[in-house]
Amino acid sequence: MTAAADTRNSAANKHFDLGPAAELVSKEEGHRQPLAPEFVSLEDFSPLEVAYDFGRVRREDIEAGPRSIWRYKSLLPVPSDVEQHPNTEPGCTRLIRADGLAKALGVKKLWIKDDTGNPTHSFKDRVVAVALAAAREFGFNVLACPSTGNLANAVAAAAARARWDSVVLVPSSLERAKVLMTAVYDGSLLAVDGNYDDVNRLATELAGEHEDWAFVNVNVRPYYSEGSKTLAFEVAEQLGWRLPEQVVVPIASGSQLTKVDKGFRELGEVGLVEPTPYRIFGAQAGGCSPVATAFKEGHDTVQPVRPDTIARSLAIGAPADGPYVLDTVQRTKGAIEDVTDEEVVEGIRLLARTEGIFAETAGGVTVANAKKLVENGQLDPDAETVLFITGDGLKTMDAVQEHLGPKATVAPNTEAVDEALGR
Amino acid sequence: MTAAADTRNSAANKHFDLGPAAELVSKEEGHRQPLAPEFVSLEDFSPLEVAYDFGRVRREDIEAGPRSIWRYKSLLPVPSDVEQHPNTEPGCTRLIRADGLAKALGVKKLWIKDDTGNPTHSFKDRVVAVALAAAREFGFNVLACPSTGNLANAVAAAAARARWDSVVLVPSSLERAKVLMTAVYDGSLLAVDGNYDDVNRLATELAGEHEDWAFVNVNVRPYYSEGSKTLAFEVAEQLGWRLPEQVVVPIASGSQLTKVDKGFRELGEVGLVEPTPYRIFGAQAGGCSPVATAFKEGHDTVQPVRPDTIARSLAIGAPADGPYVLDTVQRTKGAIEDVTDEEVVEGIRLLARTEGIFAETAGGVTVANAKKLVENGQLDPDAETVLFITGDGLKTMDAVQEHLGPKATVAPNTEAVDEALGR
Ligand SMILES: Cc1ncc(COP(=O)(O)O)c(C=O)c1O
Ligand SMILES: Cc1ncc(COP(=O)(O)O)c(C=O)c1O
Repeated sequence: MTAAADTRNSAANKHFDLGPAAELVSKEEGHRQPLAPEFVSLEDFSPLEVAYDFGRVRREDIEAGPRSIWRYKSLLPVPSDVEQHPNTEPGCTRLIRADGLAKALGVKKLWIKDDTGNPTHSFKDRVVAVALAAAREFGFNVLACPSTGNLANAVAAAAARARWDSVVLVPSSLERAKVLMTAVYDGSLLAVDGNYDDVNRLATELAGEHEDWAFVNVNVRPYYSEGSKTLAFEVAEQLGWRLPEQVVVPIASGSQLTKVDKGFRELGEVGLVEPTPYRIFGAQAGGCSPVATAFKEGHDTVQPVRPDTIARSLAIGAPADGPYVLDTVQRTKGAIEDVTDEEVVEGIRLLARTEGIFAETAGGVTVANAKKLVENGQLDPDAETVLFITGDGLKTMDAVQEHLGPKATVAPNTEAVDEALGR
Repeated sequence: MTAAADTRNSAANKHFDLGPAAELVSKEEGHRQPLAPEFVSLEDFSPLEVAYDFGRVRREDIEAGPRSIWRYKSLLPVPSDVEQHPNTEPGCTRLIRADGLAKALGVKKLWIKDDTGNPTHSFKDRVVAVALAAAREFGFNVLACPSTGNLANAVAAAAARARWDSVVLVPSSLERAKVLMTAVYDGSLLAVDGNYDDVNRLATELAGEHEDWAFVNVNVRPYYSEGSKTLAFEVAEQLGWRLPEQVVVPIASGSQLTKVDKGFRELGEVGLVEPTPYRIFGAQAGGCSPVATAFKEGHDTVQPVRPDTIARSLAIGAPADGPYVLDTVQRTKGAIEDVTDEEVVEGIRLLARTEGIFAETAGGVTVANAKKLVENGQLDPDAETVLFITGDGLKTMDAVQEHLGPKATVAPNTEAVDEALGR
């Protein structure tokens, strides 16, 4: 056992300072236990979630805070000096009014939350920053993860910036851009023969054996996943401290979707916004749609599948938060759809053409599902809607490259240009 | 001639509303002329630059403004309702304290201005947004450019978002990522047989023939280039309304470097900061270093070269603002260096390893030059320094890919992982 793990374990009864976080609660039966790097309740074997004791949280204090997710630290499981430690400072990404796309989809008032502006160009920078802060408090010194790619980028970058070692496990079939953008940070990147679900199982085993490794989405997952609440916080603040009526969120493990909901609820609870009703819609790719299938068939559990889709960042066949996604969507009167790979590509191109945003396949999934949900009458075209664009097109170029290129290659003279453009 | 050009021309004496912009002034002899889409003085044949009549500009008003470059609209040549028109809303990117890189370089206090967070992941979104706003006021309806890549991405995206047509001309050898990230927005992308300097000449000819085409870096260049001032404005605001002592800026045409200087000066003039002294350093790649060469040889003009470097976004052999870069660097007591392609790659890797930022080759040029400038005693290691990281690593993957990859490919079991990591 390493020194760090030693310190951590001998401090089992230590009070960890994670700001407003008070304890962990099991999702099924509500068993409570002290804050610790644990993710499953030994009472009912359900996932553990962070519960809070929020102090007074005021809009003015948030607005005067840093231009990153740390402006919301009074609503996150992080120490109060969190921004003093080197971190990637993610968040505060654009929320843009999307009238062009709205027109194309036939909806009235549409916004895009564009998380391609994050440090490694996906929403994963948010969850990793929160996981790192909690992991530091718990005494870990290696940041680790199994990943479908975006998380790999975010973990490797965050570890480099914090001067921690990293261990990143990815399926050996991963896109080249995601491999390079992980390797460049010089941590330990390992390609694993298998799909994401195999890699995830391996990570869970390794987390048991290496007590100084914080697997962000395994042993510190309860803290990690809270980072997605910042998407909800930012949207509400950017709308002028109010909630949208509808949101569309892509689903892999399902964590993000449930935490967007938790974020909206907490904003109402602490009085930062009016607790107006909202509907949450989930988006999957047809080649990996276990949650959409369960929703459509009216089940409350999710049957694992073997993924086969170009939306590899969403290719989790056994989604850990699947049942909670079903709960959330039912409670908020949303729906979950899925689309074909062709529709994903068309979704990427539609978003680029209408709004000038180049999203990865996950973004194509979101846009294409929004289109389908309008067409089949599930998304209300008259209600204000926010689409979450969570990852960047430069990471999944293979998905679109056969469709795209210059209109022509021309000689360097004006006649050649005019001819090529038909002017 | 098109309707738009007609309107524009018949309105030759119209007063254009470009906010605080008052007139155009020739850089050599200071000849003044009214605001118009022109870029060369017919009096002395030198470039035209925007001159202002600044009103009262207060920190509080800026701080209460939008979270984009439009917070500085009272210092830019744009209409006062600029943020009402659909645009990419660039700017407000991270300024992060870089203690890890500082240690590696042997300097005391280092910051990185990370413009990879912009909508198309380079600083070009800033200049294009300003060019588009001015072009709209002048009555153009097509956004165009010759580009080494980043500008192509920014122009195509901005045009899509504004629902304008675009015409983008690039050298046919351009990187795949930059081609795809332009084509996806569905404007008119043409590959031109030739290098950037050939493409640039072609654009100048086309600008004369197509009066409704606003070539952002040709006929509306005086407005376009002012967009780079926002880098200086943001750095000063993010430092708590003060100027840094030293900055390192990459040079292609040289526009950005001269405008960072103009931005710092204007902040002092309008009283937003104390006008403390600062030194501006320029960074080039050895395979295209006409300005560094002129600086080292003590010339005040720049001898064109034929570029040959992996830093293709900086590969402008005949830099339009070369002489003004020399002036600026001399006046501020800076210097200009250049580095080899190997040093560029090492610069990219050093930045990634120490700070978790994956920059494109231009960023590698900046970091490698900073290292060299410290080593040869030109950059003061005790003075507070800001490095401008202006573009994204995902766009120049070819430059690093042979050096990077997973440490190993392993079977999905813990023994294989432990063995690969030597634990
Ligand atoms: C770009 C992107 N969007 C969305 C998701 C979905 O995240 P979750 O696992 O929280 O459902 C992922 C997960 O990897 C992702 O990479
Ligand atoms: C990433 C990047 N950095 C810096 C520059 C230099 O710009 P300038 O032409 O203003 O010197 C460019 C120009 O294309 C660029 O693409």
